[in-house]
Amino acid sequence: MDARVKPDLTFDLGAWSAGHLDQVERALDRWVRASAPVNVEHEAPAALIEAMRYAVLDGGKRLRPLLVMAACEAVTGERAEAPDSLRCEAALRAACAVELIHAYSLVHDDMPCMDNDVLRRGKPTVHVQFGEAGALLAGDALQALAFELLTPDDDMPAEQQARLCRLLARAAGSAGMAGGQAIDLASVGVALTESQLRQMHRLKTGALLQASVMMGAAFADISTQAQRALQSYGAAIGLAFQVVDDILDVTADSATLGKTAGKDASQDKPTYVSVLGLDRSVAYAQELLAQALLALQQSGLRDTQALEGLANMVVNRVS
Amino acid sequence: MDARVKPDLTFDLGAWSAGHLDQVERALDRWVRASAPVNVEHEAPAALIEAMRYAVLDGGKRLRPLLVMAACEAVTGERAEAPDSLRCEAALRAACAVELIHAYSLVHDDMPCMDNDVLRRGKPTVHVQFGEAGALLAGDALQALAFELLTPDDDMPAEQQARLCRLLARAAGSAGMAGGQAIDLASVGVALTESQLRQMHRLKTGALLQASVMMGAAFADISTQAQRALQSYGAAIGLAFQVVDDILDVTADSATLGKTAGKDASQDKPTYVSVLGLDRSVAYAQELLAQALLALQQSGLRDTQALEGLANMVVNRVS
Repeated sequence: MDARVKPDLTFDLGAWSAGHLDQVERALDRWVRASAPVNVEHEAPAALIEAMRYAVLDGGKRLRPLLVMAACEAVTGERAEAPDSLRCEAALRAACAVELIHAYSLVHDDMPCMDNDVLRRGKPTVHVQFGEAGALLAGDALQALAFELLTPDDDMPAEQQARLCRLLARAAGSAGMAGGQAIDLASVGVALTESQLRQMHRLKTGALLQASVMMGAAFADISTQAQRALQSYGAAIGLAFQVVDDILDVTADSATLGKTAGKDASQDKPTYVSVLGLDRSVAYAQELLAQALLALQQSGLRDTQALEGLANMVVNRVS
Repeated sequence: MDARVKPDLTFDLGAWSAGHLDQVERALDRWVRASAPVNVEHEAPAALIEAMRYAVLDGGKRLRPLLVMAACEAVTGERAEAPDSLRCEAALRAACAVELIHAYSLVHDDMPCMDNDVLRRGKPTVHVQFGEAGALLAGDALQALAFELLTPDDDMPAEQQARLCRLLARAAGSAGMAGGQAIDLASVGVALTESQLRQMHRLKTGALLQASVMMGAAFADISTQAQRALQSYGAAIGLAFQVVDDILDVTADSATLGKTAGKDASQDKPTYVSVLGLDRSVAYAQELLAQALLALQQSGLRDTQALEGLANMVVNRVS
């Protein structure tokens, strides 16, 4: 057996995640606070920052930042948490930028004119807490902040800044997340083919998850083969994430999910479960996991333990 | 008299603008269309692109793109319209990116939870035409597209891409436009001091106008003196723009403005006219124009005719 594909039995995803999550949480808080305007004699910008912090902090699995860091470590062979490394600081920026885009999309998605949801991560949604206008603005400002994080006026190489902005902007826009949300919105009460459903999710959630992997991979020059393999990995877990989301929407309860369970069915939205049925959806998720792990083997990269662990986590999570 | 400050009597702002406006209009249309996802068997992303085109095309004075191009010409000494020049293509990207941010902010600003306006540039606002969810998504996608335009996968230098993203992200976010809108929202029916009013507008409109100038100025290496002078110019016309907006809100009619006149007064929002009175507001606008023109003289730059012309246009416009 090739040494490259031997599972690293000593790798502890929980411990690995804990360190990185702590770093991401603190960095998000620091950078959101730092985005406040200076010399302003009015409390409204501070309230905007509060809404942004509420939207971003203390919530979520942080799957996207973890993917950025795991991919960064896979291509560089270095742990991305040495506090004094320039590359680690840059990887942390990339990780937080993706999370800011994800957070803004949830804020806008929950608004009354979209999914009209009042519960998110076990808390009232942003528009419930800060009003609709506050939620709209907080989302807008979070998107801008993502690109601000990627373009510091410091030693981070310009080539890296540009590449990260490029990947993130494409994944967030109409050919990515926003385009997928447009399909989602138009699909209430409408039957989709499996192919349409896959396209919707490839854009709506897949694009940003795949971008997370490729942004992490942007921290080293890797072979075209490794690039393609990571793209396949990202595509597979991107889709798997949504299949599992659809499964959990019918099998878990709201308390476990931290959001309203059964929402898709009650809104008559097409899901993998409604299109494929529950059993075939479960099998499909496992098939996608196998594809993701195979892609990692084919990447020729050595340090893929965290990426493996995250793929397993995506498919076998219970919330 | 120094040759640098002699007015160029042969400069025709109308002719200069016409050529650039045509270029910007076609580029916006091309780039918004090109942002559609490929291989999608659902009509929703195409509808999203339509909403984005509706929001962006065929409207507005295009002041921000013109500022980008005028500043680019001032620092490079070259007309920014030679179709085969790499620098011109890049300047056009910067010009369109700023306009996309401006357009998205209008779309979100007009929504019922914000200013609740139904008329913009003489047409129904985006949410009236495409629904609230459509408007929310179109705005979100326009913001992402702005950063996508600035990061092409081509010969545009990475240093330039990063610098432009940095300027735009800061101007759009909570320390810029979004922060100013937060103050604006919180100011309905509330008295502001002149200083608070100025801060609100410095963020809400000033930041993006100033960024337009500095993004254009990013196309050449210029002296610190010239940098500072252009920043002053941008700050002065940014503020002047808003003072004149407030004046026109009480002196012009809806047909001339292409939006609802008297809106600020009817919403009981603080304006320069409500704080300073009409006469002092008019005098203040002229004072800001003088500051802007003086800054150009102090810049040491030669080719500032278009920037001069635009400053005059901002202050002496009738709509």
